[in-house]
Amino acid sequence: MSSIGKLVKLNVWGESHGSMIGGVIDGVDPGIKIDYEKLRAHMKRRSPGKSNTTLRKESDEVEFVSGILNDTTTGAPLSFVIKNSDHHSKDYSNIYNTPRPSHADYPATVRYNGFNDINGSGHFSGRLTAVINVAGFIAKEILKQHDIYVFSHLYSLGDIVDERFDDLKFTDYSDLKNKKIEVINDKIIDKIDKKIESLRDKKDSIGSSVETVVYNLRAGVGDTLFDSIESRLSQSYFGIGAVKSVEFGLGKSFDKSNASVVNDCYYIENEQIKTKTNYNGGILGGISTGMPIISLVTFKPPASIGITQETIDLRNRTNTTLTVEGRHDPSIGIRAVSVMESITAFVIYDLLKEYGWKNLEKK
Amino acid sequence: MSSIGKLVKLNVWGESHGSMIGGVIDGVDPGIKIDYEKLRAHMKRRSPGKSNTTLRKESDEVEFVSGILNDTTTGAPLSFVIKNSDHHSKDYSNIYNTPRPSHADYPATVRYNGFNDINGSGHFSGRLTAVINVAGFIAKEILKQHDIYVFSHLYSLGDIVDERFDDLKFTDYSDLKNKKIEVINDKIIDKIDKKIESLRDKKDSIGSSVETVVYNLRAGVGDTLFDSIESRLSQSYFGIGAVKSVEFGLGKSFDKSNASVVNDCYYIENEQIKTKTNYNGGILGGISTGMPIISLVTFKPPASIGITQETIDLRNRTNTTLTVEGRHDPSIGIRAVSVMESITAFVIYDLLKEYGWKNLEKK
Amino acid sequence: MSSIGKLVKLNVWGESHGSMIGGVIDGVDPGIKIDYEKLRAHMKRRSPGKSNTTLRKESDEVEFVSGILNDTTTGAPLSFVIKNSDHHSKDYSNIYNTPRPSHADYPATVRYNGFNDINGSGHFSGRLTAVINVAGFIAKEILKQHDIYVFSHLYSLGDIVDERFDDLKFTDYSDLKNKKIEVINDKIIDKIDKKIESLRDKKDSIGSSVETVVYNLRAGVGDTLFDSIESRLSQSYFGIGAVKSVEFGLGKSFDKSNASVVNDCYYIENEQIKTKTNYNGGILGGISTGMPIISLVTFKPPASIGITQETIDLRNRTNTTLTVEGRHDPSIGIRAVSVMESITAFVIYDLLKEYGWKNLEKK
Amino acid sequence: MSSIGKLVKLNVWGESHGSMIGGVIDGVDPGIKIDYEKLRAHMKRRSPGKSNTTLRKESDEVEFVSGILNDTTTGAPLSFVIKNSDHHSKDYSNIYNTPRPSHADYPATVRYNGFNDINGSGHFSGRLTAVINVAGFIAKEILKQHDIYVFSHLYSLGDIVDERFDDLKFTDYSDLKNKKIEVINDKIIDKIDKKIESLRDKKDSIGSSVETVVYNLRAGVGDTLFDSIESRLSQSYFGIGAVKSVEFGLGKSFDKSNASVVNDCYYIENEQIKTKTNYNGGILGGISTGMPIISLVTFKPPASIGITQETIDLRNRTNTTLTVEGRHDPSIGIRAVSVMESITAFVIYDLLKEYGWKNLEKK
Repeated sequence: MSSIGKLVKLNVWGESHGSMIGGVIDGVDPGIKIDYEKLRAHMKRRSPGKSNTTLRKESDEVEFVSGILNDTTTGAPLSFVIKNSDHHSKDYSNIYNTPRPSHADYPATVRYNGFNDINGSGHFSGRLTAVINVAGFIAKEILKQHDIYVFSHLYSLGDIVDERFDDLKFTDYSDLKNKKIEVINDKIIDKIDKKIESLRDKKDSIGSSVETVVYNLRAGVGDTLFDSIESRLSQSYFGIGAVKSVEFGLGKSFDKSNASVVNDCYYIENEQIKTKTNYNGGILGGISTGMPIISLVTFKPPASIGITQETIDLRNRTNTTLTVEGRHDPSIGIRAVSVMESITAFVIYDLLKEYGWKNLEKK
Repeated sequence: MSSIGKLVKLNVWGESHGSMIGGVIDGVDPGIKIDYEKLRAHMKRRSPGKSNTTLRKESDEVEFVSGILNDTTTGAPLSFVIKNSDHHSKDYSNIYNTPRPSHADYPATVRYNGFNDINGSGHFSGRLTAVINVAGFIAKEILKQHDIYVFSHLYSLGDIVDERFDDLKFTDYSDLKNKKIEVINDKIIDKIDKKIESLRDKKDSIGSSVETVVYNLRAGVGDTLFDSIESRLSQSYFGIGAVKSVEFGLGKSFDKSNASVVNDCYYIENEQIKTKTNYNGGILGGISTGMPIISLVTFKPPASIGITQETIDLRNRTNTTLTVEGRHDPSIGIRAVSVMESITAFVIYDLLKEYGWKNLEKK
Repeated sequence: MSSIGKLVKLNVWGESHGSMIGGVIDGVDPGIKIDYEKLRAHMKRRSPGKSNTTLRKESDEVEFVSGILNDTTTGAPLSFVIKNSDHHSKDYSNIYNTPRPSHADYPATVRYNGFNDINGSGHFSGRLTAVINVAGFIAKEILKQHDIYVFSHLYSLGDIVDERFDDLKFTDYSDLKNKKIEVINDKIIDKIDKKIESLRDKKDSIGSSVETVVYNLRAGVGDTLFDSIESRLSQSYFGIGAVKSVEFGLGKSFDKSNASVVNDCYYIENEQIKTKTNYNGGILGGISTGMPIISLVTFKPPASIGITQETIDLRNRTNTTLTVEGRHDPSIGIRAVSVMESITAFVIYDLLKEYGWKNLEKK
Repeated sequence: MSSIGKLVKLNVWGESHGSMIGGVIDGVDPGIKIDYEKLRAHMKRRSPGKSNTTLRKESDEVEFVSGILNDTTTGAPLSFVIKNSDHHSKDYSNIYNTPRPSHADYPATVRYNGFNDINGSGHFSGRLTAVINVAGFIAKEILKQHDIYVFSHLYSLGDIVDERFDDLKFTDYSDLKNKKIEVINDKIIDKIDKKIESLRDKKDSIGSSVETVVYNLRAGVGDTLFDSIESRLSQSYFGIGAVKSVEFGLGKSFDKSNASVVNDCYYIENEQIKTKTNYNGGILGGISTGMPIISLVTFKPPASIGITQETIDLRNRTNTTLTVEGRHDPSIGIRAVSVMESITAFVIYDLLKEYGWKNLEKK
């Protein structure tokens, strides 16, 4: 199923090379006014025009076709479409029978008995993340009304590494979205640019990671076991193509740590309960502690590269080679920053509808 | 919600210090014969008697109270209970008002308005994983009928690191379960034992990681976006207490890798489609490729340590210190091996009921 | 799946002739104090000791085994068991291969490949409704805190018909539960008693119907299309064995009515918006209007009768006859009154958790 | 939530007076070829051009925008839109503050804080059933491949009553869809026509009922308790606007029946297990018996009538009157026949995906 959420549900549909993609948000609060200029700016964050990672031009103009009246949500299912303007189907013609290594082509062909649309990866295309961004935009607007903020940034690209988010107190990172490449430390932008150029020359690609923070979620939101905040966020994160690792707080680095060092001790400050460190990323027992929620996801390198690779021919079941023509992104992380921010905001919004009403009422 | 699964659902209930814990498996196939000796052996894998990680004695005798006739599942909800035999409630008496650092105590108190059972961590106790093991035992029996096998092992404890599972072809690791500590490389067992002793002396604890493999799941199982195999497995993994990182295949290490190196190229061998490497851990686009499914989860160090820590007093909202008395495990990973194997088997069984019937029918 | 609910979920397990039956309520509010005397009285309402419809003696002593501390819900899954004290497995021995007409025996045998427990109807037994009553008891306690009340009564048994509930304003029917047979009009109790005697003599049974009312649910609770209050209540109602018809408000009688007669016109009284009639049973467009919610369900006659009936022998697939020995209820409706009240309260409680928080906060 | 289904999910969006309505079918089988001529004919069945019940002209041209390639489903979410061509928003201008009796206007205004789109009933409009028809068309195509057939007909309109479907054996009713009014007995068509004319003259409306049959669903499909076939069908049926009663088999008439008369006795004929009668409508214990599935739903009279009615003014909270201008259908049942057939087919298709694969494989 291409949907996520319990009390507010996002249903994602579309293919890279269809006439349009879109989504339905069911259960959205009524009374949310859409600021189209802000929405356009948000959509542009994942568009290739921003950095030089891709040469494709994607039109991400969002058209709401239901659930809206006078630019304001009515509470009925909010349906929207984004037209696809840039089809180059011929670029993908040779992959029909020679599945691209590390792409969904082969398992999808088995899964859908060969009826799947393989043009531009079809429903598996990263283009679908534009739909997630629309949902995230609306979620962020609602969270803001409750003083909750979500930020993401490119944390690493190959061995170029950014600073981490402040995980102890609210810090305003709203300028990130205006940067050419959304990193905290401006000094690494040039390095990243050069790395991308170099990869493009080599027709290769590289892995990356994106960090996300949620500020001001009150303590006591979430649930035990399989409905933990980590369970719900990770389900959504692994729904984003190319994510292969999800960590919360210290994450994988817990594996060599002693509790005497990484336990988060409580203290009281200005009548507020806080922890001195936040190695747990704001979540204990699946429930929010009131400290910032911190996650880090790793994206594998984009599988489409210009270098000739070994593969098979499904028609005669023989070994062969494949050179994937066309335009390729050398990295996913750069464009995925706003997507991670969006899906996180959407999941937190859903959690808030379920657990947060006491808190909401006070606002 | 303390439940997981779509076509077969596990509902987990109980507290560490209640009279019993248990679970309900709804949607289980009829006709599964329970081999109680095998079940007991499986339950014992997570019990502390096996290694020296804990001094607690837990009785994990499983009693099925519905859904069973002549030791065989009927297809009706399979309900079972495990009696708690070892209550030491007094050990936890001082934590009621002074939440233990890095435990669920504080967020749970907020979440449940102070009505939560804090004895032995209540519903947040690792004891609940015994219930998961029962479900996993049954799932593994069913998977075996379809020639699908799930194995887990302790991959690392602090800086002691085991070998990795064979990620290219089926390998029989069924002897792992008989080892004192379930690692591939026997030579590290002594090292781990000594490390545990040393930590116990220091009243400290350490992080660890567990690797899991699923062999022989056919290609084409799983779904797009938020219903990907990674989404479903990670939702379940983060439902296990203390898991803070989940990776598939190369996982986090993708962040510095080039696609030219880590793309998994296809080839044909004996009319079977395989990949030369399996950096993607058997999953592409959320769907199985037919190669082994590989995951790695990281457990933080157990938060309960004998060292005095800073915390707060919730009654008068002042700063104070806390020394957690009682018996503590210096590591979670050792006992969690069978739990990871169990929850993985359960999720794969659920996936198979949804997507796998064409394959099943052929058996 | 034997479970129901979205934010609060009831999972029902057990068989008529197992050692125990039980349920798990996941997502229940913390802080609900259990009054065991009241619970016992509520359980007794569906027990046969009350009227003379059955000679079976069922012990319905409820034991909570998790999610409770000091007789108060903790918010963790509330698990409870009810021991079965009265097994007479031999009564059912002859139905293994000769399915009883109008019982679940035959379709269940196909569904579960013959592994299903057929003793006393197994998981299909009306005995399981005791579990629903426990859930309903707790839901009713919570609803009462918000001034919401649910009542059910036996509306008809054969051609003996009771009065209808007041569908325009709150009326206290709490004395119903103390009556030998729970009807509004005391004058029909004797008639019903005699009818039951007569049916028992004839070894026959008869259909019946139960009406339910929900008072004081505020307007604006519920949702469109398949999440309408009617959809959610009817899903639960048809989960009760032998229910074959569900109506809201005027229900089936709408089929001959003109809108000019049965439209519910609005008016203002004491600043409250009401309708002059309530033919729609308090629900319009799937959403509550603030008027009483009115439903009526029809139970078929109990299929187990002492009269010899034609059936088949599954072993040799030949025609044969069957005489069902043992004790039979001549009517389901009499004992189902508290079950209907319970399942309705549970569904309304779940709805309130989802839609009602604005309203709850004001209390 | 405006969605239904477990393994195949329909998400319905749109408003009567928006630019378009549509739906997403997630989980649909790949390889289903769309015959547009047949689809157009199916959509026309609920259009007003067929009978004379309404003067509105609705364009129901379906455009698939994702999940389709070469007119064949790919298995990805199948998204489709239907443009609205006939907007007359001014007709509804006066109802904004004076809610129409027996319409969703008032509860929806409370539910959505006044942000709901009230034009033409917005998301509550019967127009949305066109989306259900698209889903039903596809479901019927798939069911047909497995030799399963669904038929609906107008069973009653006021006191004009049709024959019942054959509930004992497959009977081909495929000619029904070509009739001006879809009834079995042609002789009542004229009567109905005249009744409609007469109601239109009086500016009044009337209730009606629609019967549905499913032929050839094998025994053993469905589940216990709240996942019974009745539970799942009724949830879907009460999601259709104006449905106020749902019955299976003998339904409400069970209330006066003796088991000795209405029990369905088994017999063997040509090695097939059948029942001599089918009062249970093909469902026992929530599971199919292999006999035809029979349901009957009652529609209330359309609430929009030309007669002046009492209501309230929400602005100043006073009593007032309202005359609903515009075009009104005097009956819902006539146009709802194909909708009932469609939603039934969709639910049965979903059930078959869950329970039916053994059966499917044999075909």
